[in-house]
Amino acid sequence: IAFAGSHLIIDLYDAERLDDLDHIEQTMVRCVEEAGATLLHIHLHPFEPNGGISGVAVLAESHISIHSWPERGYAALDVFMCGDAEPQRCVEVLRKAFSPARIAVQELLRGKGA
Amino acid sequence: IAFAGSHLIIDLYDAERLDDLDHIEQTMVRCVEEAGATLLHIHLHPFEPNGGISGVAVLAESHISIHSWPERGYAALDVFMCGDAEPQRCVEVLRKAFSPARIAVQELLRGKGA
Repeated sequence: IAFAGSHLIIDLYDAERLDDLDHIEQTMVRCVEEAGATLLHIHLHPFEPNGGISGVAVLAESHISIHSWPERGYAALDVFMCGDAEPQRCVEVLRKAFSPARIAVQELLRGKGA
Repeated sequence: IAFAGSHLIIDLYDAERLDDLDHIEQTMVRCVEEAGATLLHIHLHPFEPNGGISGVAVLAESHISIHSWPERGYAALDVFMCGDAEPQRCVEVLRKAFSPARIAVQELLRGKGA
């Protein structure tokens, strides 16, 4: 695993399909593919009664996580990738998949001082 | 899953035992317990040749992740917890477990605007 990386903190507002587990899993896999990363493990968990989903994908380049609150149209994600992967490419995948009215993206650079 | 939460971005510098998978798993579980959170799923992956570990824990309250680079003494974690859990309590657990020379903690408040 290459050292240091880009950690994107992504918030989706007024988004759709946030209770659709299969769609969320497929979107996470698409994010991995589009970013040029390598999927090692993926796990999703549905919550009752709100239909929210938590999902994590462990990558050779770090991880992706999502937590959704469909009743608010809100999802909190983070996309952390080291090496040559391109995590920014996930933003457009998420936009197409969940049709949010607004996306907020914050980039944190991890490990630069180590 | 309660709405909105505290997302701690934690960097450990000059830390020890970052290649010890069992120790890392036990520390993640201890973090969950100390924070008063509920573990749903945990997965750790070791990397060769550097001995780095990636781990994710899915919680009823969101997640914990760790990525370690033992050859640099560096680990990147995030601890995201919603509801009544106390993610700040994980910082002391990490300090005891990995004896870092320095810990940087940044708190992001997720979902406040949703």
